Amino acid sequence: MNTSEVTQKGKAAKEASQKLALTSTKIKNEALARMADALDKNAKAIIDANSIDLQAGDKKGLSKALLDRLSIDGKRINGMIEGLNVVKSLPDPIGEVLSEWKRPNGLKIKKVRVPLGVIGIIYEARPNVTVDSAALCLKSGNAVILRGGSDAIQTNIEIAKTIADSAYLAGIPQGSIQLIHDTNRATAEELMKAREYVSVLIPRGGRGLIQTVVQKSQVPTIETGEGNCHAYVEKTADLKKAVEIVFNAKVSRPSVCNAIETLLVDEDIAADFLPMVKKKFDEAQVELRGCRKTLKILPGIKAASDEDWRTEFLGLILAIKVVAGVDEAIQHINRYGTLHSETIMTKDKKAAKKFQDEIDAAAVYVNASTRFTDGFEFGFGAEIGISTQKLHARGPMGLAELTSYKYLIAGNGQIRV
Amino acid sequence: MNTSEVTQKGKAAKEASQKLALTSTKIKNEALARMADALDKNAKAIIDANSIDLQAGDKKGLSKALLDRLSIDGKRINGMIEGLNVVKSLPDPIGEVLSEWKRPNGLKIKKVRVPLGVIGIIYEARPNVTVDSAALCLKSGNAVILRGGSDAIQTNIEIAKTIADSAYLAGIPQGSIQLIHDTNRATAEELMKAREYVSVLIPRGGRGLIQTVVQKSQVPTIETGEGNCHAYVEKTADLKKAVEIVFNAKVSRPSVCNAIETLLVDEDIAADFLPMVKKKFDEAQVELRGCRKTLKILPGIKAASDEDWRTEFLGLILAIKVVAGVDEAIQHINRYGTLHSETIMTKDKKAAKKFQDEIDAAAVYVNASTRFTDGFEFGFGAEIGISTQKLHARGPMGLAELTSYKYLIAGNGQIRV
Repeated sequence: MNTSEVTQKGKAAKEASQKLALTSTKIKNEALARMADALDKNAKAIIDANSIDLQAGDKKGLSKALLDRLSIDGKRINGMIEGLNVVKSLPDPIGEVLSEWKRPNGLKIKKVRVPLGVIGIIYEARPNVTVDSAALCLKSGNAVILRGGSDAIQTNIEIAKTIADSAYLAGIPQGSIQLIHDTNRATAEELMKAREYVSVLIPRGGRGLIQTVVQKSQVPTIETGEGNCHAYVEKTADLKKAVEIVFNAKVSRPSVCNAIETLLVDEDIAADFLPMVKKKFDEAQVELRGCRKTLKILPGIKAASDEDWRTEFLGLILAIKVVAGVDEAIQHINRYGTLHSETIMTKDKKAAKKFQDEIDAAAVYVNASTRFTDGFEFGFGAEIGISTQKLHARGPMGLAELTSYKYLIAGNGQIRV
Repeated sequence: MNTSEVTQKGKAAKEASQKLALTSTKIKNEALARMADALDKNAKAIIDANSIDLQAGDKKGLSKALLDRLSIDGKRINGMIEGLNVVKSLPDPIGEVLSEWKRPNGLKIKKVRVPLGVIGIIYEARPNVTVDSAALCLKSGNAVILRGGSDAIQTNIEIAKTIADSAYLAGIPQGSIQLIHDTNRATAEELMKAREYVSVLIPRGGRGLIQTVVQKSQVPTIETGEGNCHAYVEKTADLKKAVEIVFNAKVSRPSVCNAIETLLVDEDIAADFLPMVKKKFDEAQVELRGCRKTLKILPGIKAASDEDWRTEFLGLILAIKVVAGVDEAIQHINRYGTLHSETIMTKDKKAAKKFQDEIDAAAVYVNASTRFTDGFEFGFGAEIGISTQKLHARGPMGLAELTSYKYLIAGNGQIRV
């Protein structure tokens, strides 16, 4: 029987992971430096490979947005290099003693941070994910299996070869960075079943991809990315500040998961606030869709459907709902939200506390934009994604979130009676 | 369309979980006390219900061991009551501030422990799991959906009614404790798909059950229980102490997951050590199965097959392999182990460190029995199981391991530029 590419690379990654778990910070940092150098030196070959992907994509009729995400130039390579330098500068999480204690029988128990093992990343057509994931996994002592989309395969092959070869030259165990070359759907599905080799799968991409992985995978997964986020303007809010926050949360980068999709406004201030916010949004050509009460105040806009409350627009559309107060706002968010990021604008400490206590989300803000839900903005230095599940990690996932732990127990002959 | 039992109870549990997350420690403890009282007062009804299950089980031809696990008497009810009192006495994990920091832009970020939400427990015929799981979930602020096996259904219905009613009287939100009455396989499978209502599934039972849940579930799961554990006697070990530890690890309770299944012995000491250990094991009627080298020293015993290295015997059988040294021992364990508990007997600090560094398991011991891998023995006060995966929780899972966290962020108008 032929061994499949996934099995073969899975085995190799698992073997490598056992050595990589014990590799020193010095070697890991040296590898990250060499990977950065190699990307720089190999930029032309990478851009050439990328142009093959771009031509194929163009022929295939990929959208402009997709082609843009796929394309690589000198500036984007510099971005990848910068990312490697950032990861190099971060403290190594491995070996950290999380806690230690002594039992009455004399056993000394130490809880120590260790890598997860082998991390599988299933992603689409953004080649920077290749470098970024490899760097974060390497620094956290994990081997990585990269399964990118077919549209970026030539680029990914060139990038993966560049960074893996240079990492191995620095002393990283051979096999620690694996790219699956066969981009047939079957290899992704095989990876989702590879419990023997893969400790965790992290899908990175659009909703369709993430839902497929989360539903089909037998390997433990971390659900990332979908953000149906809300801003709620409570009646005591500083309305001017609220306009700025709501505008920032919607418009500064509408295509990302921490942007808001729905604005909730207390009815007591809706007649004052909604025209203020509409003026600002009109300038940015944001399409507003309102509930019945909103339409009375802003008669020119479109009506919001129930579907709109559920939708992550990922573009310049905002749904607006007038609510009776903090209770209705919380109820709406806990019904339609995706456990990502939610914010309240208020001067009322009780309302703020209630909102933060009762909202079920990874990040709950008071008087700030939801756009801060991000590994860099949180001070983690980097992120591999934003978890919207509660198991293992929640919110922005940095290096620490790519680790597990083990208990080391020292005895002198203890037996259990 | 009729709403299924799982959907209906799932919805109710999810609604309850939002309130339970905010319920005070005082009310939770009051509930645990009332649950204990109610079990005591209702003991007769529970034992009566249990006798219906026992009769049905007997008719069905259940094994003696299964019937024993299923059966409930006054002593076992007292055990459940004691368990409730222990959980009551433990500190409430919810609300704990795990860390807090301030960002240069003035945002204050606080990481706070919160419940997971709704925990689904799929288990077999041990009715004490019903009480035990309900208590741990309640104290950690989680609603619970219990899906026990058909053999214990009458007992479980009576127990669940008893504890839920008394918890609600103490102020626990209605719906926080749910038992699925329909024990058809379909309800378990529905629960495994109920991502909308269930945050986490924890299977508790034998290998078959756990593997089914882990492989089929779309809800995040925690793999528990399977323990193919090893004891390794390194050449510098105190052989007398090693005999005691190995004997304890195998014989003190052979049916549990933290018992050892294979003994590894350095060849330098095998001729001395193996006869010592055989003498002790013979007294306890433990069947030994040895590798080729073992058979030369202990010619009377059975030969071990490759299958034996992989097997969790869960009984009085021990496989024995003579190894060249610590490297071969580590290699064997990392190949056949189930990431549970492993121990080395040695006086050599370098060998001990190497073993603890390189063995991939939840608990790695030096000079102590693997039988200590247990929430009580670790000092957690209680446990819901022993995780053999690396995501979320590893090793014994107490109350803290039944929680997640969220970030609370306080600003004064911050927007992201």
